[in-house]
Amino acid sequence: MIRRTLLALALLAPAPALADTLLDNVDGISVDREGRVTRFRGLVFDDNGRITRVLKSGEKAPKVDYREDGRGRVVIPGLIDAHAHVMSLGISLLTLDLSNTRTLAEAQAKIAAYAAEHPDRPWIIGRGWNQETWGLGRFPTAAELDAAVADRPVWLERVDGHAGWANSAALREANITAKTADPSGGRIERLPGGKTPAGVLVDGATTLIDSLIPPPRPEDRDLALVKAQELLVGNGVTAVADMGTSAEDWMTFRRAGDEGRLRIRIMSYASDVPTMQLIGGPGPTVWLYDDRLRMNGIKLYLDGALGSRGAWLKAPYADDPGNTGLQLLNGTQLRNLMSRAAIDNFQVAVHAIGNAANSEVLDAIDELSDTYGGDRRWRIEHAQVVDPADFARIAIHGTIASMQPVHQTSDRLMAEARLGPDRLAGAYAWRTMQDNGVSLAFGSDAPVEAPVPLEGIAVAISRTDADGEPFGGWRPQEAVTRETALAAYTAEAAYAGFADGRFGRLEVGERADFLVLDRDPLLSNPDEIRATRILQTWIGGMRVFGGDAPAREDEGRKITR
Amino acid sequence: MIRRTLLALALLAPAPALADTLLDNVDGISVDREGRVTRFRGLVFDDNGRITRVLKSGEKAPKVDYREDGRGRVVIPGLIDAHAHVMSLGISLLTLDLSNTRTLAEAQAKIAAYAAEHPDRPWIIGRGWNQETWGLGRFPTAAELDAAVADRPVWLERVDGHAGWANSAALREANITAKTADPSGGRIERLPGGKTPAGVLVDGATTLIDSLIPPPRPEDRDLALVKAQELLVGNGVTAVADMGTSAEDWMTFRRAGDEGRLRIRIMSYASDVPTMQLIGGPGPTVWLYDDRLRMNGIKLYLDGALGSRGAWLKAPYADDPGNTGLQLLNGTQLRNLMSRAAIDNFQVAVHAIGNAANSEVLDAIDELSDTYGGDRRWRIEHAQVVDPADFARIAIHGTIASMQPVHQTSDRLMAEARLGPDRLAGAYAWRTMQDNGVSLAFGSDAPVEAPVPLEGIAVAISRTDADGEPFGGWRPQEAVTRETALAAYTAEAAYAGFADGRFGRLEVGERADFLVLDRDPLLSNPDEIRATRILQTWIGGMRVFGGDAPAREDEGRKITR
Repeated sequence: MIRRTLLALALLAPAPALADTLLDNVDGISVDREGRVTRFRGLVFDDNGRITRVLKSGEKAPKVDYREDGRGRVVIPGLIDAHAHVMSLGISLLTLDLSNTRTLAEAQAKIAAYAAEHPDRPWIIGRGWNQETWGLGRFPTAAELDAAVADRPVWLERVDGHAGWANSAALREANITAKTADPSGGRIERLPGGKTPAGVLVDGATTLIDSLIPPPRPEDRDLALVKAQELLVGNGVTAVADMGTSAEDWMTFRRAGDEGRLRIRIMSYASDVPTMQLIGGPGPTVWLYDDRLRMNGIKLYLDGALGSRGAWLKAPYADDPGNTGLQLLNGTQLRNLMSRAAIDNFQVAVHAIGNAANSEVLDAIDELSDTYGGDRRWRIEHAQVVDPADFARIAIHGTIASMQPVHQTSDRLMAEARLGPDRLAGAYAWRTMQDNGVSLAFGSDAPVEAPVPLEGIAVAISRTDADGEPFGGWRPQEAVTRETALAAYTAEAAYAGFADGRFGRLEVGERADFLVLDRDPLLSNPDEIRATRILQTWIGGMRVFGGDAPAREDEGRKITR
Repeated sequence: MIRRTLLALALLAPAPALADTLLDNVDGISVDREGRVTRFRGLVFDDNGRITRVLKSGEKAPKVDYREDGRGRVVIPGLIDAHAHVMSLGISLLTLDLSNTRTLAEAQAKIAAYAAEHPDRPWIIGRGWNQETWGLGRFPTAAELDAAVADRPVWLERVDGHAGWANSAALREANITAKTADPSGGRIERLPGGKTPAGVLVDGATTLIDSLIPPPRPEDRDLALVKAQELLVGNGVTAVADMGTSAEDWMTFRRAGDEGRLRIRIMSYASDVPTMQLIGGPGPTVWLYDDRLRMNGIKLYLDGALGSRGAWLKAPYADDPGNTGLQLLNGTQLRNLMSRAAIDNFQVAVHAIGNAANSEVLDAIDELSDTYGGDRRWRIEHAQVVDPADFARIAIHGTIASMQPVHQTSDRLMAEARLGPDRLAGAYAWRTMQDNGVSLAFGSDAPVEAPVPLEGIAVAISRTDADGEPFGGWRPQEAVTRETALAAYTAEAAYAGFADGRFGRLEVGERADFLVLDRDPLLSNPDEIRATRILQTWIGGMRVFGGDAPAREDEGRKITR
C-alpha cells in the first residue's frame, strides 16, 4: 500500500519534495533589482532548498513538516559579493597577513615574528601591505624588509595585488639587478638617482618573483577553500563572483562540490581564454551542485590599479607627471579576447580602473555589440575612475558596473593624490552610475578588502569610513540609498552573474539563501549597520553559520507535530 | 495522510527506492574474479541502478513496479575494457581511419579520396595505418604519401600511436630536413644510404609535427565523446579504463556527466603528474555521477611499442641488430613519478612492452612497496614481452597485468620478426601469467584495436584471428578458458580499477550493467563468439543500446500491474 502510494507519486513527480520547512515569525525583507522592498513574515522551502511560498503578514501558516521559529528577528537575502577572489582569499588566510598593520615598523615586527614562527619555510610569503595606510608616502624598500628577515627570501604582495615587495634575498633569487630591464607591462621600482632595484615590483614585473614561488599544494588549496568559506558565511556572504578563476581554483571548487563541502555559490570567471575553454568547452557550464557553481565567462585585465599607479589614465598621474599607467592589452588584443569569449556565449568581465581603460572598454563593447547581440551583460570590474563624458554610454548595451564601496574609503586620500582635484568627479561615482541607468553590482575585491558586505553597505550610504571620516562623507553626493546598496549586494549582483531566478531574492522559485540579523539594516545608521550581528547564515535551506550547534543538514530544525 | 507516510519513510531512509525493476526470465551469467560462474534467472534493481536481488532458477519472482521480460535470452555482465583511450577513439571516429586498409595502394586511394572530400581542411589528419598489415616489410615513405596528397600537409598516426607518417608538405611545415637531429626519445626514419628524412617519425620525434596540428575544438571533443560512447555501448562495453587522460579529456568527461550525457563508466588515469594533481588534488577523486567517473591515478610510459621498434628490450631486435628500443624514463625518473603518485594514494599504471621495461617496472614496484604498502594494485599495461624469469615476481606485490588479447593476433608475425624465436616464450603469455597467480585484466587499447571485447574473448580462448589463423593457434598453450577471459573483461577489470563492489559482477549491491546476447559465450566456439549479437546494453539499470526504441530513462519498461 505504501509502495503503491510512493509509486503513484513517483510517476507524478520525478523528484518529489519529501519534506517542507517553514521559517516563521520573522521580520523579512527582500529587494528587487530596483531596490523596491517587500516585507514578509515567513518562508516555506522544500528539500531542494527552493522557496515554495512567501508568507505575508497576517497570512495563516501552512502545515509543514518542520518549523523554524525566527523569534521575530530580521531576515534579509543572503549577500552576494560581486567581485572577489575566493582562492586568493583562502590562501591569504593561510599566509602572513599584513592588512591590519598601521605603520612600517609594525609590519616589520610582524614579518620578523612570523619568520621566527616558521623556521622551516624556505620562503616567507604574505600579502596585504599598503604604504598609504602606513603614511609612508613612498613604497617600502628591500633594505627595510631585510631589517625584518635577511636569512631567506621574503615576498609580500601589496593589498591590491598589483605590486610586490621583495627583500634582497628574493631579488637575488630572481636575479633582479640594476641591469634588469622593466618587463613589458611592469615596472621595477629603482632607488632614487640610480638603476638599483628598490624592492617593489609593479604589475607585470611581479612575475619575475611569482614564478619562483612554489605553488600551494593541493591539500593547501582545499584547506584554503574551507577557510574562505568560513570567513564568507560568517560575514553573511552566500554567493560570490570569483574574478579570475584558474584551472586549479576550479578543480578545488569541484572537489568541494563533489565531496559535498561546497557551501557558498560561486559564479566563476576564468583567468584566461585557455582556462575558459578547458573548463567550459563550447560554452558556459551548466549550473552545478544545486546552483552552487557555474563557469560564466572570462575576466580580462585592461589596466592595473591606482595605488601602484598602474591604472591607465587619459592624462598623467597628478603625483607622477610622466606616467599614465599601464595598458595591459592593446585595442586589438582586447577585442580579440572579448570576441573569443562572446562568440561562444561566455560572459565578459573587464577590469578597468583608469578613465582611459574605461573608455576603451566602452568603445570595445560598442563595436562588439553589433556582432554579439542578445543578453550579454558585459561587466566592467571596478569602473573606478570614469571620464564624466562616458557615464551616459554605459547603460546603452546594458553594461554592468561591478564596484567595491570600501575601495572608496580605503583609497580616497591616495586617489586625491593620484588624480588631483579635476578627475574626482568621475571617481567611485555610484550615484552617477545609478542616475545614468547603470546596473550596479557591489563587491569587496577580497582579499584586497575584507569580504564584509555590511561594511560595504555602511560605506555605500555614507561615504565615510569606520571612524566616520571624513565628516559628512567624501563627495557625499555619490552615496546611494540603503535599498540600492542592498539590491547591489543581492538581486543586482545575482543578475550580474546570470543567477537571477536562482538566488538573490527571497521569492518563490529562488533558493532559500538568507541571513538572520539582530537589527534591520534599512532602519539603521552606518555605525549600527557596521555593528549588526549576523546570527545565522542559511544557504539553500541549510543553516551554514550561527545557531546553537555546528551547521549540519536538518540540524536545528524542529519537527512540529 | 500521504504526506505523513512520505515523511515517515523519508525519516527512515534519506533516499528511498521509489520503484524497483525486475529483469526476469533470462539465462543469466556472472563470474567472479577467479572465473567461477554463477547462473541466475532474474535481477531486481532500484532507481539508482543498483542490484537489490539476484533470482536463482526456481525462485519466485517478487512483486515489483516494472517488469522487463528477458524472453529466455542470455544475460552477461557489461564488458569492461581495461585499457583504452576514449577521446582518441572518439577523435579517430571524426578523422580519416586507415585501420581497415589492406595494402599501401588501398590506403593511398582512401587518403586521396578523403582529401578531395575535405578541400577546406588545411591539414589532412588520420590514423590507423600498419605497414605490417600491408605486407610492406618497411615503413611507407613521404613520397608515397605525396602520391596521394601533395597540395597540403598530411599527418597520419600509426595504428599503435607510436609513429607518424608525414608527406613532404608536412615535413616542410615542421622544417624537418637531413640536418635535423633525432630528438631525445625519438627517431626520424631516413632514406637508405643517407640522412634524408624518409617520412615516418617514431615516438618522441612525432611531437615535431604533432605540435603544429591545431588541437580539436571543444565542440569536436564533445562530439567525439558521443561517437566513442555509441561505438562502445554498441559493442557491449559498459566501462573503460582510460589510459592517459589529459585535462581536456577530463573536462570533456565532466561536461558529459554534468549534462547527463555520460553513459559509460570511466576509470581515468592521468597523462602526467600535473594533470593528476590538477584534477585529483590531494588524492584520487570520489566516484562521480553514480559510479560513472573517477580519477584513479596516473599512466606512465616506460617504453614504446614493438611495431615501431620502440619497445625496450634486453637484447637487440632480431630484425635490427643495433637497436634495443627506447627507454622513455630512466630508473630515477620512473621511481620519482611512481612515488609522487603513490604518496597521495594515486594508482600507478605503467606502460611496459619490452622485457627490459617489464623488468624495470617490477624492480621499481619491489623497491617502492617497502614505502607504499597496503592495497596499491600496481598495473603493468601491455606486459607484452616478459623475461620468463620475471613471471614469478609479478604477483608478489599484487601487480596486475593489463593485457590486450587482440594485439596477439595483430602482432604475431611482426613479433616473430622483431623478437626471433627465443624470446617468444614470454610474449603475450596470458596463461603463464594466470598460472603465476597474476591478476589479468583485458582490454583493447582502442583506437589501436577496435573496442570489441567479444573479439578479444574469441582470441583469448583460441590464439587464432578472425580467419582462424594460424591453424591450432599461435603458441596455443597461452590460451585461457572462456571463464577466465570473461572474468578478465568484467570482475578482474573492475578490480584493476578499484571498482570492485561497484560494477563488474551481477551481484547484490553492484550496478545493473548487463548485456542481452543472442547466445551463450560460454557454450560457443570462437567463430560463434565473434558472431554473437549484442541485443541490448544496459548501464546502471538503464538501457543505452538496442531494443525497439532509442535509449531513454524508463523507456521500454513495462508496468506489470
